Amino acid sequence: MTIKRLDHIAIVVGNLDAALGVYRDALALPLDHVETIPEQNVKIGTLPVGDSETGNNTVCIELLEPTDPNSGIGRYLAQRGEGLHHICVEVDDIAAALADLKAKGVKLIDETPRRGAHGKIAFVHPKGAHGVLVELVQRD
Amino acid sequence: MTIKRLDHIAIVVGNLDAALGVYRDALALPLDHVETIPEQNVKIGTLPVGDSETGNNTVCIELLEPTDPNSGIGRYLAQRGEGLHHICVEVDDIAAALADLKAKGVKLIDETPRRGAHGKIAFVHPKGAHGVLVELVQRD
Repeated sequence: MTIKRLDHIAIVVGNLDAALGVYRDALALPLDHVETIPEQNVKIGTLPVGDSETGNNTVCIELLEPTDPNSGIGRYLAQRGEGLHHICVEVDDIAAALADLKAKGVKLIDETPRRGAHGKIAFVHPKGAHGVLVELVQRD
Repeated sequence: MTIKRLDHIAIVVGNLDAALGVYRDALALPLDHVETIPEQNVKIGTLPVGDSETGNNTVCIELLEPTDPNSGIGRYLAQRGEGLHHICVEVDDIAAALADLKAKGVKLIDETPRRGAHGKIAFVHPKGAHGVLVELVQRD
């Protein structure tokens, strides 16, 4: 498998507007957009970090506010508090990457890709990556 | 203040060699180098994530293995386990950035920069950044 680039870092927060008060207003990162993804039970604020303004090749910080306290991410927030939640790396061929990781014995949450907001996605289990939830994305 | 780019993501691990078995061998990220920084009580493996091979403008994953269980990072590992530890962003003028953040009421660990391995560094307190330990670096 080949990782092309780091796509985003996701931070779970209790209130997106309050978090924007730090990440946009104090750290002065530009806010690209806010979107709600009902099937993932999150409202997301996306802030590119870097020189490029294209948004396509720039690593982003994604601030995730759970919209349902009973969802997986809602329970994560309740149990662990705000903070770093996962990292996402972009790959060319997500099916091949998953097959490769499985063959190497890496514990996966998703053995086959599922539909994300911007492409095919899958998650490596934190137990397979030394405590880090790693998302793979193959962008459309 | 202006954040130029994301510099690295740091992951605390119990054993660097074991973690390289996942991040270098399974995820196929290149290992740039391993260094021990005695004053920070860590052994670090640095793996660039991305197209560029220069190392200078590429976001890196840093795998941090504590070398002293009684250090801050050693106790963090014992209490919280392996996983995402902090993110680091590069700024042009770290003293100005810290003054700006302080004026905006953001809680800091370091109000003045200190010497890091590759430049001046300072940390924003996780309580100031919604649970995320944020390092600033002004590279030499």
